[in-house]
Parts: sequence; structure tokens; C-alpha cells
Amino acid sequence: MTTTTSEIEQKAREAKAAARRLSTLSSEIKNNALNALADALEAQAAEILAANAVDLERNRADGLSDAVLDRLTLTEPRLKAIAADVRNVARLPDPVGEMLEMRTLPNGLMVGKMRVPFGVIGAIYENRPNVTVDIASLCLKAGSATILRGGKEALQSNIILGRVINEALRSAGVPEGAVQVIESSDRAIVSEMLAMKQYIDLVVPRGGEELIRFVEQNASMPVLIGGIGVCHTYVDADADLEKACAIVVNAKTRRFSICNALDTVVVHAGVAPRFLPLVASALAEKGVEMRCDAAAYDVIGDRPNAVRATEADYGKEFLALVAAVKVVDSYEEAMDFIYRYSSGHSDAIITENYTTAMRFLREVDTAVCYVNASTQFTDGGQFGLGAEIIDATQKAHARGPVGLREICTYKWVVFGNGQTRPA
Amino acid sequence: MTTTTSEIEQKAREAKAAARRLSTLSSEIKNNALNALADALEAQAAEILAANAVDLERNRADGLSDAVLDRLTLTEPRLKAIAADVRNVARLPDPVGEMLEMRTLPNGLMVGKMRVPFGVIGAIYENRPNVTVDIASLCLKAGSATILRGGKEALQSNIILGRVINEALRSAGVPEGAVQVIESSDRAIVSEMLAMKQYIDLVVPRGGEELIRFVEQNASMPVLIGGIGVCHTYVDADADLEKACAIVVNAKTRRFSICNALDTVVVHAGVAPRFLPLVASALAEKGVEMRCDAAAYDVIGDRPNAVRATEADYGKEFLALVAAVKVVDSYEEAMDFIYRYSSGHSDAIITENYTTAMRFLREVDTAVCYVNASTQFTDGGQFGLGAEIIDATQKAHARGPVGLREICTYKWVVFGNGQTRPA
Repeated sequence: MTTTTSEIEQKAREAKAAARRLSTLSSEIKNNALNALADALEAQAAEILAANAVDLERNRADGLSDAVLDRLTLTEPRLKAIAADVRNVARLPDPVGEMLEMRTLPNGLMVGKMRVPFGVIGAIYENRPNVTVDIASLCLKAGSATILRGGKEALQSNIILGRVINEALRSAGVPEGAVQVIESSDRAIVSEMLAMKQYIDLVVPRGGEELIRFVEQNASMPVLIGGIGVCHTYVDADADLEKACAIVVNAKTRRFSICNALDTVVVHAGVAPRFLPLVASALAEKGVEMRCDAAAYDVIGDRPNAVRATEADYGKEFLALVAAVKVVDSYEEAMDFIYRYSSGHSDAIITENYTTAMRFLREVDTAVCYVNASTQFTDGGQFGLGAEIIDATQKAHARGPVGLREICTYKWVVFGNGQTRPA
Repeated sequence: MTTTTSEIEQKAREAKAAARRLSTLSSEIKNNALNALADALEAQAAEILAANAVDLERNRADGLSDAVLDRLTLTEPRLKAIAADVRNVARLPDPVGEMLEMRTLPNGLMVGKMRVPFGVIGAIYENRPNVTVDIASLCLKAGSATILRGGKEALQSNIILGRVINEALRSAGVPEGAVQVIESSDRAIVSEMLAMKQYIDLVVPRGGEELIRFVEQNASMPVLIGGIGVCHTYVDADADLEKACAIVVNAKTRRFSICNALDTVVVHAGVAPRFLPLVASALAEKGVEMRCDAAAYDVIGDRPNAVRATEADYGKEFLALVAAVKVVDSYEEAMDFIYRYSSGHSDAIITENYTTAMRFLREVDTAVCYVNASTQFTDGGQFGLGAEIIDATQKAHARGPVGLREICTYKWVVFGNGQTRPA
């Protein structure tokens, strides 16, 4: 414990000191550092893959599942893709120093908000080693230092990636200490990090629900929560059913193991008799099981891919080829249902009715609200942010895709010429 | 305990239910409600003042200080001023529904951020009953419900104000339950509120340092922290010393008991021999004691208002006619000093040097950063926001004056026409 405490304390101090210098670093140096990092990831592929092989071997011996092993695995093409992402971050506009809401007051004071770095961002994640590079590069571009705590399964990979990152940053003139990779796999480190509000300004957990809840409940500093999506698509009475079917199938099946994948289809009773058979056939082709309420089961209960839903199927993130189905008698009932069961990640309406569409956008209390589109678009890259650190579901600070702008904070700047405030 | 638990739980549930309906309430109804409230505060002045008299009498008997009694006291002119503030909030633009960063993506999706209400905002404050009306009216305009927990000293005043508010809101058609005034003075209520993240989306403490720290450490939901200002004004080597003197005197003495008042003057050694006598005379006229480091004491130690500083005088919020003085040999030393001791509320530089001014604005890590102006301008009204709920010093969500826009959150809205995401 003494050793690990001193590791995290030391790294946190270094990150804090680096953050102050990073906050005013030029875009040129940051971009040069990112390009140097991308080059180094490719040039040092052999050493990175060798470290990754050590992780894989140990985890295989420990009996980890193929899915986990796949997430852990780095390959030459994967490294190239990671390097390409880093180059992409280098090309994005620098959010730091952007001016917002600038105005001149009657007394001549010019006042506005300046976008500035957050400071030190802590990330706690699980077994994907690419997250180490992702978060370090995004935060560097946004002017913040990082403290990165990946899963013990990827420890050797993260250690070598940390070294490659730090060498590249050093070569480009980035202040020492900007990226701190925790090299201890002691679980107590996470609790220590979460208590360090004097050093860490914001913490971002990325991983499963257990990790996220632990961080949310124990962090002394602000937290960006994301990654848990119980997503609804409501097929309205005025939906174009062909459009609805294509969107529902895409939202469920393009990828089913990600947080913006559809979980529950809510169908207006007026279109259920026509829509449900249509979508049941299309989903059956993709191997999707439909868990139906009584009304839906009345329509498609004879299909091999239809089963009866239980209460536990609503508000559940399946991350599997399963969709819950709920039939409602009105728009209002759909909204009550979504209000109750949504995790506030991504929800959609399918309708050709303009007024209903606009009403939905106003009323639904969700980070990303869609009309006539697949919820699988929830992603910083898709939204034109270039990249994202997380899709946030809390309401404070940033909501939905968190890109470079959203991981910054702002300060007010006031240009005076001698103004004093009257009594 | 059982009774108080049910009070807060019941009120929190009602607020949550009201928040959903409030979020889409028209500006017209909100503004009508605010104007009705302003009228009612004037029309029901006699009853409000009678309840306030009960509070005052009890507190006088309890031996509370004159300063506290003054903060507690409502008078007809004070009620008129509160009513005027409420009418002002009614006149401000509605922040809800404002669209930000709207763009059309190559696939035709139109994507942007919509400013939306936060939900339920909890406020915990001390003895000023006007805060009850302030926060309720600002949050109503911003579409959020409120749970208000004022100090026990103002209990009778807050209860009657809560009734006046609720009658006015009801008469204008605002959903029941939008403003909840806690009527129990049990201290355990605060801890219960802070645990209720399922109902309360954001909590704002307003009061002394002890209250603020307690809320910060115990809240399960995001917190807006403010009100503690250790404010610096740095008089640079290139300052206009007349301007500097006027600004320092204003920043310290216009009002000394507020959080944006100057605490420490940092003076470049190059101008200290000329500036310190100038400012010492001006501050002496206002009765300000100057706590000087050795270098400053060498210059003005003979003045009756100069004493030697101790280390405890730096980083201290005086809230009194006292200013600490620190002489530095360089801009960099000034920045290190401010970085170390500032509370991140409001800090200023006085300089005629353009490059130094711009550098300061980039480098200082403070909610409101000034060039050549008094820090006493830190205020939502002064900044053109119309009003404010707090001057925030944390970095997450909102920083500096928190007005109607800043107490909102946003969601992403996506206008599609059938888009599905390619594999």
C-alpha cells in the first residue's frame, strides 16, 4: 500500500504541475506531439505487440473469455488504426482559447467566456489498451493532463503505450508529466484516485456498469458518466413504416454490443398490426429475439423469434440480439414509458407528423434525441466532433458525445480600461 | 425523524414530477407567473413582514448579532426591491430551447445542442429570506423545479414566502409542486437532501464556508460551489498607477463583505516605491489596514494603517477592511503567487503592457480574469446576464456568474429523414 500510494500521489502531483504549463501550450506543439505519437505507434509496433502478447498469454492462462481477449488484442492493423485516430485529433481545431458570448457592456467593459482546459483528467477503464492512447491524445489536444488507470488485464500493453506516449510528447516539447499511466495493478489505486480532488479535476470511468457505479458513488471530484444506454425507438401512429423498419433494424443490429444500440421498440397500437410483422421478419433475418408485451404478442406471437416479455426486459440494456417490444395507445403513453425506462442516452421517434416530431424533441429528457434516424449515430465522430471521450448521460457539464470542446471548461475574461464599480 | 423524512421525500417527489411538466412550459406562462409573484410580494407585504417580525423577535431573544439580524430583516422597500428583481427575471430572454452549434452533416442529419432545463435544483442557504424568492424565480424561468432549504433563523419568513410564491404560480397556471420550501428546521434535512440524487439533479449551497464545504463533501449529485473569493489584484511593472490605485481602492472598499472584494494586492517591485505610498494613503482614508510583507513594509511601514503580514494573511478571504500586500520581482513570481493562493473566484492585473495583459488572461486559472478593472464587477447583473444564482468557483458545468443560461443543461437533437448508420 505504501508503494502504490506514493506512485499515485507522485503521479498526480506531476500531472497537476504539467497541467498548468499545458494549459497555454501552442496548438503547434500539441499537434506535433500527436503526430510524433502516431509515428511512434507504427515505428514501435513490434515492442508494443510483444508487450501485448505477454498480457494475452497471461489472460489466456487465467481463462478469460474470447470476447475479453479480443478487446485486449492489439495487431499491426489495429495499431495503424489507433495511429490514424491520433493523426485525426491533431487535425481537429484546438478548442482552447475559443471565445464565447463576447459582449461590450455599457460601461465599456468587454466581457466574454474563454474556453480553457479542465486541468487534470483522470480516466479509469477496463481492458481495451487503445483507450490509453485515445484519452491521452484527446485530453492533450484539449490542454489537460491525464492520469490513466487501465485494467490489470492490459497492464503490460498500457505500460509500453505510456512509454511510447511520453517519449513522443517529450520529443515535441510537451511539458513532462502530461500523461501519467498508473503501473500498479493494485485495486486500491482506484479509491485513492477518486479521493484526490486536490489534484484531479474530473474523472471519467469507461467500462461496465459496476465500474461506472463505483466511480460515480466514490469520486470526490466531478464525474462524466456514460456508456450505459437503454435506448428506445418509438414508432408513432404517423410513422413511415418502411423507414421505421429500416431504422429499427439498423439501431438494433448494426452493432448490438454498444451503448447506442436499440433495446426497446415502442409501437403505437394504430400501426402495430402492420408494423410488427414487418419488423419481426426483418429482425428474424438478423437473428434478433423479440420480447413482446401482450399486445405485441397477440400480433406476432406465432413467429419463432417472438417470446413474451417480463417486466425485467424493460429498462434493460441487452447488448445482445434481443429487443423488447411495447405497444402503447398514445404518444403520451409512449413518452411516459420512455421517461420511466430510458437511461437518458439515445431515444428516437419515427414519425412523419411534424408537430409530433417537434413535440418529442422538446419533451424527451435524453442526451441525444432523434427524429427519423438510427440511435447508432450517437458518437462524437458521427456528430462531426472528430472524436469523443465518452457519451455522457449525466446532466452536469456535458451531455451526449463529449469531444474536445466538451472536455474543456471556460473562464470569463474582462478587458477593462480602468473601470471601477459605482457604489 | 420519520416526519421530516416524509416531508423532504414527499416534496422531492412532487418537485420531480413538476420538473417534467415545467421543462416544456411556455415563456408566457412563466413570465406571467413571475409578474404575479412580484405583484403578490407587494400586495401581501403586511403578512410577509409580520412573519418576518416573528423571526426577528425570536432571533433577537436568542442573541443573534446585529449583522445577522440585518440580513434577516425584510422591510417594505426591501420587498419592493425583491419584487423588482422578479419582474426583471420575467423580462429576461428565456434560455430554454436556445439552439447551439447546429450543423448539417454530410449524410443530411441536422444535429445541434438544445438548451434545456436541468430538472430539480436544490438550494441550501442561510439567513437571507430574499434568497428564497431569488432562486425560485430564476430557476422557474430556466424551467427547473426547486427545493429550497433556508436557515432556521428565517423559517417563518420562508414559509410565508413559499406560500406567496406557490399561490402566484398556481394563479398563472404553473404546474403544482414547482417550488418546494422545506418547512422543517431539523438539521438532518440537509443530509437527507444531499443523498437524494434520484430526485435532485443539482444542488447549490449559498452561505458561509462551513455550509459550502459540508454540501460539497456530502452531496451525491453535482454541486455548484461559489461564494468564497480570495481575490488578487496584481499591479504590474507597466501599470498606470493612478488607474491601479483607483481600482484597488474600489475592489477593496466599495463593499468589503462580499466575495469579489480584493484580499491581496500583489505589487511589482519596480513600481512598489511609487505605488505603495499612493495606495496606502487612499486606503487609509477608507480605514483599510494593510498587512505587508517585508518588502512592502520597508516602503510604507511608517504608515499607521500598515502592519506586518503573517503567512496566514495570504490566501485569506478577509471580508473586512483589511488587505494583504505582497511585493514580487517579476510577472512570473506574481503568477506563481496567485496560482498558489487564489480561490479561483476573481483576479485582476493592472498593466498598460498589451502582451502582459494578454498573457495574464491566458495564464490565470480563475473563474473571472480582469485586465484594468475592479474585481467587484463579478456579478451576473453586471455582466449582462440579468441576474445570477451564484458565482461559481468549481470548473465543472459553469464557472463565474451563473445566470439563466448557465443553470440549464443541454441535449442533442437530431433531425433525420430515415438515416441509418452504415456498417
